[in-house]
Amino acid sequence: MSSKFYSKENLRFLLHEVFPMKDLCSTKLYSEHTVENFDMILEAADSLATQHLRPILQEMDRNPPYLENGKIKVHPKMRSLMKTFGEDGWISMSASREFGGQELPFTILQATAFIMAAANYDVMAYPFLTNGAAHLIESFATKELQQTFIPKMYAGEWQGTMALTEPQAGSSLSDIVTSATPTAEGHYLIKGQKIFISCGDHDGCDNIVHLMLARVQGALAGTKGISLFIVPQHRPDANGNLYPNDVSTAGLFHKMGYHGAPIAHLIMGERNNCHGYLVGELHRGLSYMFQMMNEARIGVGLQATSIATAAYYNSLDYANVRLQGRKLSDKDPLKPQIPIIEHADVKRLLLFQKAIVEGSLALCLQACRYYDLWMSSEGEEKENNFLLLELLTPVAKSYPAEMSILSTSAGLQCFGGYGFTKDYMAELFFRETRIHTLHEGTTAIHGMDLLGRKVMGNHGKATMLLVQEVMRDIEVAQKSEQLKPYANVLSKKLLKLQEVTMHLMGLAQSGGAEVFLSDASLYLELFGILCTAWQWLKQGIATAQLRQNSQREYSPEFLESKWLALQFFYEYELPKAEGLFIRLKSSNHITVNARAEEIL
Amino acid sequence: MSSKFYSKENLRFLLHEVFPMKDLCSTKLYSEHTVENFDMILEAADSLATQHLRPILQEMDRNPPYLENGKIKVHPKMRSLMKTFGEDGWISMSASREFGGQELPFTILQATAFIMAAANYDVMAYPFLTNGAAHLIESFATKELQQTFIPKMYAGEWQGTMALTEPQAGSSLSDIVTSATPTAEGHYLIKGQKIFISCGDHDGCDNIVHLMLARVQGALAGTKGISLFIVPQHRPDANGNLYPNDVSTAGLFHKMGYHGAPIAHLIMGERNNCHGYLVGELHRGLSYMFQMMNEARIGVGLQATSIATAAYYNSLDYANVRLQGRKLSDKDPLKPQIPIIEHADVKRLLLFQKAIVEGSLALCLQACRYYDLWMSSEGEEKENNFLLLELLTPVAKSYPAEMSILSTSAGLQCFGGYGFTKDYMAELFFRETRIHTLHEGTTAIHGMDLLGRKVMGNHGKATMLLVQEVMRDIEVAQKSEQLKPYANVLSKKLLKLQEVTMHLMGLAQSGGAEVFLSDASLYLELFGILCTAWQWLKQGIATAQLRQNSQREYSPEFLESKWLALQFFYEYELPKAEGLFIRLKSSNHITVNARAEEIL
Repeated sequence: MSSKFYSKENLRFLLHEVFPMKDLCSTKLYSEHTVENFDMILEAADSLATQHLRPILQEMDRNPPYLENGKIKVHPKMRSLMKTFGEDGWISMSASREFGGQELPFTILQATAFIMAAANYDVMAYPFLTNGAAHLIESFATKELQQTFIPKMYAGEWQGTMALTEPQAGSSLSDIVTSATPTAEGHYLIKGQKIFISCGDHDGCDNIVHLMLARVQGALAGTKGISLFIVPQHRPDANGNLYPNDVSTAGLFHKMGYHGAPIAHLIMGERNNCHGYLVGELHRGLSYMFQMMNEARIGVGLQATSIATAAYYNSLDYANVRLQGRKLSDKDPLKPQIPIIEHADVKRLLLFQKAIVEGSLALCLQACRYYDLWMSSEGEEKENNFLLLELLTPVAKSYPAEMSILSTSAGLQCFGGYGFTKDYMAELFFRETRIHTLHEGTTAIHGMDLLGRKVMGNHGKATMLLVQEVMRDIEVAQKSEQLKPYANVLSKKLLKLQEVTMHLMGLAQSGGAEVFLSDASLYLELFGILCTAWQWLKQGIATAQLRQNSQREYSPEFLESKWLALQFFYEYELPKAEGLFIRLKSSNHITVNARAEEIL
Repeated sequence: MSSKFYSKENLRFLLHEVFPMKDLCSTKLYSEHTVENFDMILEAADSLATQHLRPILQEMDRNPPYLENGKIKVHPKMRSLMKTFGEDGWISMSASREFGGQELPFTILQATAFIMAAANYDVMAYPFLTNGAAHLIESFATKELQQTFIPKMYAGEWQGTMALTEPQAGSSLSDIVTSATPTAEGHYLIKGQKIFISCGDHDGCDNIVHLMLARVQGALAGTKGISLFIVPQHRPDANGNLYPNDVSTAGLFHKMGYHGAPIAHLIMGERNNCHGYLVGELHRGLSYMFQMMNEARIGVGLQATSIATAAYYNSLDYANVRLQGRKLSDKDPLKPQIPIIEHADVKRLLLFQKAIVEGSLALCLQACRYYDLWMSSEGEEKENNFLLLELLTPVAKSYPAEMSILSTSAGLQCFGGYGFTKDYMAELFFRETRIHTLHEGTTAIHGMDLLGRKVMGNHGKATMLLVQEVMRDIEVAQKSEQLKPYANVLSKKLLKLQEVTMHLMGLAQSGGAEVFLSDASLYLELFGILCTAWQWLKQGIATAQLRQNSQREYSPEFLESKWLALQFFYEYELPKAEGLFIRLKSSNHITVNARAEEIL
């Protein structure tokens, strides 16, 4: 059986045809890059993923990290892998040249993360978390702090983390109580606890650098009183020697998957000796942190897609070789059994996965595209790209995260009884991906962010811009005989979405915030379905063009396969919008009116 | 936190008000039973489940069975539990009085299984598999075989199993190759392999009795050449001494959940000394086996519901005590945080679970009801009840099995980040329930069974009977002001289902079996949604009556809770039928037309 875990051809198709990277290279910001260079980087990521990441996936699953004498021990290969990620420039690829980075577009950073996560999601977490943390320091910290921390992080010697969550304040960042007390020496003394810190402690590196939210005494209550600090596990002196910084590992979470990466419970300042270094201005911590959070959110969508992609190819391989049963039209038991891929329902399970993973991947890359266009454009265009990025972020995070649960489940189903066993990896992917609707904001949080903030903000300007984007593609597609029916269906659904949005805006006026946002998760689901249908239309347009040009870069099977998955999405997935339209326009607000004591 | 794992009040409501057991007691067959006796049995099941089954659930999950010197070792408590199940009459409760049984209705048997599985699904498997196997022997084997095997099985000393699946023939029973060679002594020599045998070997009993499908030389190919045999792990002599019967345990499947019960790979006849005893007539094995399979299928639906029920109460408990965030209408960070059950989206996740688990439980009990009515009625009525049972079996198996994945996932989601960790049991239920769409026939198999066999059989008589049943309840509900809107919605959907069915029947004519059955899994899903909506209407009728009678048996909160869940199902779940209607009436048969090599 092959060990394919993603489609190189599809990634090429997306980055060359649907979101042509060459366009970016013609902007001033990315003018020093070439598409050939991007391709080489992705090729190198593929080699690393194939040779070093995928081979230890199952081993990592079977041997989760453990806590020994207050230190978390991870897979022995992690130390050399971190070194590779550092030395070969994977951690610093999007960093500024000042710090030895390559200033690569966000899309290329995320595409390499996609490849690595498809091979081994757990290993990918270490370098890409470090990248995000270092990027935050680059953006907002003083030169001195930058010089102290960034080179070691990009070298893969020090791990970076994102330390937000506290036991009493999960999704509610308002309620963070970790305190930071100023000292005469300029640093702050940190005291408090953080939980769910991915890579928050491990023996694959020399130090851990936490980007941590805390509250300085006297600050306003709520999110407006939160500041951002660098809190290292060890403090370096001028000569680079490391001394403990009173950050201790109180616990290691045992979890249902994602065994290769530790999630820690940390305690700071038990001996009143935990130094933290303020990043940027006081009380503006959350706005800084949003840089890392928003990047991470798109990353989560993409990583959920990675795992679903790996599960898809795993089940596709199996479906092609596993013999079972016969065609319904010829059930003669004397004839040999056929590969299960010949059964319509198995094809349904496979095409469902393909429609989801390739649709989700396009959706996430669309968000990356807006990120890069935002960075590389100016004036009104820059502002518009930022609004589009902001609008799409909760969708690109949550739709792939939610659908990855169903997609990996469909992958598992292809294996029949074997899917439930550890004989194959189907069950691993199903366990692994379940984290993605939880971390970096639960789906409920993103639903409220989308409907309450992004759709409504700026008098609905972002939504208007997005509708214009979709309509532009619909108009292109309407010119193709083959695509026209799909373009028309999407156009109608888009109108219905606008109706629903107007209806909900009315509710915001009449019923208040509770009623308005009560089904925000369903609105997010609907938005996700329509955006993914749009992404399939875009892929359809690119496919039709390639077919017309009778090019040779893509195989005819590849193009036919795209066409099948597009049809599948419009035939099987898009109709799900109908049920959501009905619900979202209902006037029975059960979940607002139900009293807690009546749910039993 | 409470450790409630199901609702006693709800089970009482279903068995007293919706499917009144007292009706059964007035039939001749069950005339010796009383409702009070049923209640006492369920109370005893509750005690056993609470005191002995639930306390070892997590322990069993953490310590899965292992293979040592060719023998599978299970939790040390299993031996005493098997004894309890035997001595206290749990295994034999539905058995004939001749074998010390109580001849209890199928509904009561399944209701006790529901309670025990909600406490600990894994432990429940051992006695109820034994019950099914012994019942099969009771129904079709000779007196001599009955006397040899049944008493030990009902006593909990010997485990019963169902041995169908072979490595080369998963869902395709036609392709079974395990052979049975007749001998002059009357027994057969069995040779072959079986996989996925639940409780196929373990040290919690003295012997294992496999009810095994095999093929006698010269038999027809396909399912018409399959016979049923009793194949014990050990052969008893006249004095009850046990001698190895050449059945060896070749392997133990490692799996993602269901850790408390072993699934074995068995090899028979390596030393040409494996005796098998024919049950009933030659070549009629599969038809006999269907007795056990059909009972087990309803059981699977119910057990999937058990796990989802346990996950629901687990998350409900948490939602009531976990403080997080504030009302959207009053976000003052100086005010204390509120229990998460106060958030609309958490209420949505909880009511979704409640609507699914109580809807599924009613659906399964409806199937049990038809079983008992079939057993206790005569003539045309008997025939009709059998048709209804047959029609509902794939639905009662698959809808709860599929929905349990989503329902346990919603339970997990209520815990936020903690849901992914082993700090709570949410992840255990999510892993555990994933087996139910796979064993006892995958969802695809049941889809084809429903649409291809049950709906179409007897010129659609079963469907007609079911529509009559539903219409009768719709008419009753239309008389209530409160229920009328729901009755009307269901009535419309029922018409649409009939339209879809007609459309598919047309396809069977024009497009052949492949096209006709290509979306049978979706048809099954649609059928499941409508049947569950029907079950909610029935529960609504009973609730409305109880409210009118101002009775005191059920708390006002319980009745309000029922009303909430009914509304939830009709507002959030029933609209999903719309997308399925659209898809099922489409003329684009992608999954039939797609060639395997174009799926990549």
